[in-house]
Amino acid sequence: MEYPWDDLTLAFSRTSMFPFFDIAHYLVSVMALKQRPGAVAAAWSNPLSSWLSAMLHCFGGGILSCILLAEPPLKFLTNHTNILLASSIWYIVFFCPRDLVSQGYSYQPIQLLAAGMKEVTRTWKIVGGVAHANGYYRNGWIVMIAVGWARGAGGAIITACEQLLKGDWKPEGDEWLKMSFPCKVTLLGSIMFTFQHTRHLAISKHDLMFLYTIFLVTIKVTMMMTKDAAVTLTPFEDTLTRMLFGRQQQQFSLSEKKAEVKPSSNGSASSASKRGTEPPSSAKRHAKKED
Amino acid sequence: MEYPWDDLTLAFSRTSMFPFFDIAHYLVSVMALKQRPGAVAAAWSNPLSSWLSAMLHCFGGGILSCILLAEPPLKFLTNHTNILLASSIWYIVFFCPRDLVSQGYSYQPIQLLAAGMKEVTRTWKIVGGVAHANGYYRNGWIVMIAVGWARGAGGAIITACEQLLKGDWKPEGDEWLKMSFPCKVTLLGSIMFTFQHTRHLAISKHDLMFLYTIFLVTIKVTMMMTKDAAVTLTPFEDTLTRMLFGRQQQQFSLSEKKAEVKPSSNGSASSASKRGTEPPSSAKRHAKKED
Amino acid sequence: MEYPWDDLTLAFSRTSMFPFFDIAHYLVSVMALKQRPGAVAAAWSNPLSSWLSAMLHCFGGGILSCILLAEPPLKFLTNHTNILLASSIWYIVFFCPRDLVSQGYSYQPIQLLAAGMKEVTRTWKIVGGVAHANGYYRNGWIVMIAVGWARGAGGAIITACEQLLKGDWKPEGDEWLKMSFPCKVTLLGSIMFTFQHTRHLAISKHDLMFLYTIFLVTIKVTMMMTKDAAVTLTPFEDTLTRMLFGRQQQQFSLSEKKAEVKPSSNGSASSASKRGTEPPSSAKRHAKKED
Repeated sequence: MEYPWDDLTLAFSRTSMFPFFDIAHYLVSVMALKQRPGAVAAAWSNPLSSWLSAMLHCFGGGILSCILLAEPPLKFLTNHTNILLASSIWYIVFFCPRDLVSQGYSYQPIQLLAAGMKEVTRTWKIVGGVAHANGYYRNGWIVMIAVGWARGAGGAIITACEQLLKGDWKPEGDEWLKMSFPCKVTLLGSIMFTFQHTRHLAISKHDLMFLYTIFLVTIKVTMMMTKDAAVTLTPFEDTLTRMLFGRQQQQFSLSEKKAEVKPSSNGSASSASKRGTEPPSSAKRHAKKED
Repeated sequence: MEYPWDDLTLAFSRTSMFPFFDIAHYLVSVMALKQRPGAVAAAWSNPLSSWLSAMLHCFGGGILSCILLAEPPLKFLTNHTNILLASSIWYIVFFCPRDLVSQGYSYQPIQLLAAGMKEVTRTWKIVGGVAHANGYYRNGWIVMIAVGWARGAGGAIITACEQLLKGDWKPEGDEWLKMSFPCKVTLLGSIMFTFQHTRHLAISKHDLMFLYTIFLVTIKVTMMMTKDAAVTLTPFEDTLTRMLFGRQQQQFSLSEKKAEVKPSSNGSASSASKRGTEPPSSAKRHAKKED
Repeated sequence: MEYPWDDLTLAFSRTSMFPFFDIAHYLVSVMALKQRPGAVAAAWSNPLSSWLSAMLHCFGGGILSCILLAEPPLKFLTNHTNILLASSIWYIVFFCPRDLVSQGYSYQPIQLLAAGMKEVTRTWKIVGGVAHANGYYRNGWIVMIAVGWARGAGGAIITACEQLLKGDWKPEGDEWLKMSFPCKVTLLGSIMFTFQHTRHLAISKHDLMFLYTIFLVTIKVTMMMTKDAAVTLTPFEDTLTRMLFGRQQQQFSLSEKKAEVKPSSNGSASSASKRGTEPPSSAKRHAKKED
């Protein structure tokens, strides 16, 4: 009774990402780039810059993991086949006559299929990142987690930096302050795969890949069909937070009050008190920027 | 009849950049830094920071190519002779009594000479970058193009990042959104030298170097004498754009309209519609910042 | 009479930073992070981001020196003991019930002790950075100075970039335009240790470490007790500036006037004249951002 399961998971873990799943990943990334305001105009006025942004969207995770491991960030450019694939998808998405691709992509089933296949590539990226980091630091499991996380979900950071350099700053572009849902799930997966890699998790790799991918795809499809923004992990997070950091509310208000009136030693108290009400003003500023 | 030509180009391609052309390059870069508003005041109030900016202006391309190939960005500091040369030029430009250097540099012929010699160093940089990248990735011709481009014209990107870190953000500082003319010409040259290096261009290296340098210098001098902003490549670009991307105007307006009303899948439609009129507001913001 | 002195300095230079001085360094860094406005709220709403900021505050110098030497920026994550130490200090500082740690830290003597011990670690970092860079470039003494400086005082640069990416831009966050006092002292120390390393300074290493540490601690403690902002180096700087750059005021006003009316060659004169009054407007902008 175990054998068919093992065969299934083994065959699944041996699936090649190359032609189809990569295409789905590139399609979703380029469509996300196109749905940015002004992206189409920028593509017409300066195709090279738009192509560069598309490459950053498609290969951002790999670039970030290369940077974190001090490898050439341009290494992804040596894989000519994938570059050609991503470039052609960028081309048909942006310059297809009568915008056929966007029209076809606007159908819900196609979006679901593409998003699901993109999530499959996420698993492969995390596994690749963990193995890659393990090649550098034999038992640096924190590095393995970080690199797996970066390769799986680091594209958002790269594109945020790109937005920053391009001048149109996106306050919601930072993945640190409030992590997006894929970011959290990727971190969870990176931790699991790292512990599986260091033999602390008694499960075979292909089983974990299979289960984690199923988990990813189901959550993603559910989130897309019911348009709610990732409430699935909230109870789990709440439990963890309460378990780690104790009674949250009064604690927080207490220490927050302290932070307001604390006398600081290095002269930053003035700016602190001055910037005490910074968040609302910044929110206002962003609102002004966005209306 | 061929021999004198070959002798000429060979001798030219063996010219050493070191004393004179480097001096011209450093002079033009430091003068560009000095003509920035507030640069002189900053040099007086904090010479070290001004010296750092000058070094970034002089060696920015090399720094960027080092970063892209994961080499130490500080490698340029090991070339003590050039550092000393650039530092002394920075010193006399900023702190020369009675500002003699700036007065001398304000004469048109001297500017023309210096700018022309700077363009000559550009060719050498591109060739060096292409060969450098080729040492890493044997047949990664995209990497060779990128590194040659970065070393030839990457200084602007480095200085833009520096501006960003220093707080005085320059919206026109990004080289991606609207490439400057040297940036385009450098990309063209990087492509040509890469294809020559991979034997796809049936021309000897020294001939290509000679012709490309002549092309650069003539265009630069023409642009400086007739104060027009690089209209020379426009017809060529238009042809290329039309050849690649078809009928531009109606196409663009069509897809632009679509981009405005497209229902997006990952909840970024709201922000898209909210930020639909972002460019004008941002332009207004920059205007407010600059007046 | 010399022997006890040598024994003392040798024993001092062999002191291990690990348990106690590192703790003091982490404590001061995390408290500096906590005294930032909104840091406590961010820690409660997103502990992972706060932990990441704390790690950047604790290990920023090492990260920057790794980047400058093209080593993996994640290398600091392989030192599990220090990571665990810093994380636990971050935990008790932010989530200790009733905020006991902050209350205890708000006492002057404890702050003095912690700050003094942190300055001791600064010496060790500079020495480590100089030796580290010397392992790469045998006689690249500029690189040695830069890396020693980066490891000793580079944390501020890393945290400034982090602030930049997080969206709450701090105009006083840039260390280049107006260097903070620790930055200057670290640069001084880095120069001294580099020249000692290259045998240009006829003093034994442990003596220099001892004297420099005494110098650092005394200045830091004095500055903290008398709340003045680092006026100690001003006469020295003035002398150096006058020695290097001559009569400052009239010179500067002269060249400043020139910079305003100078005709520039590459069309940046318009923006220069437009942005001639940029600083006040930017100051106003920051004021608007901060009120």
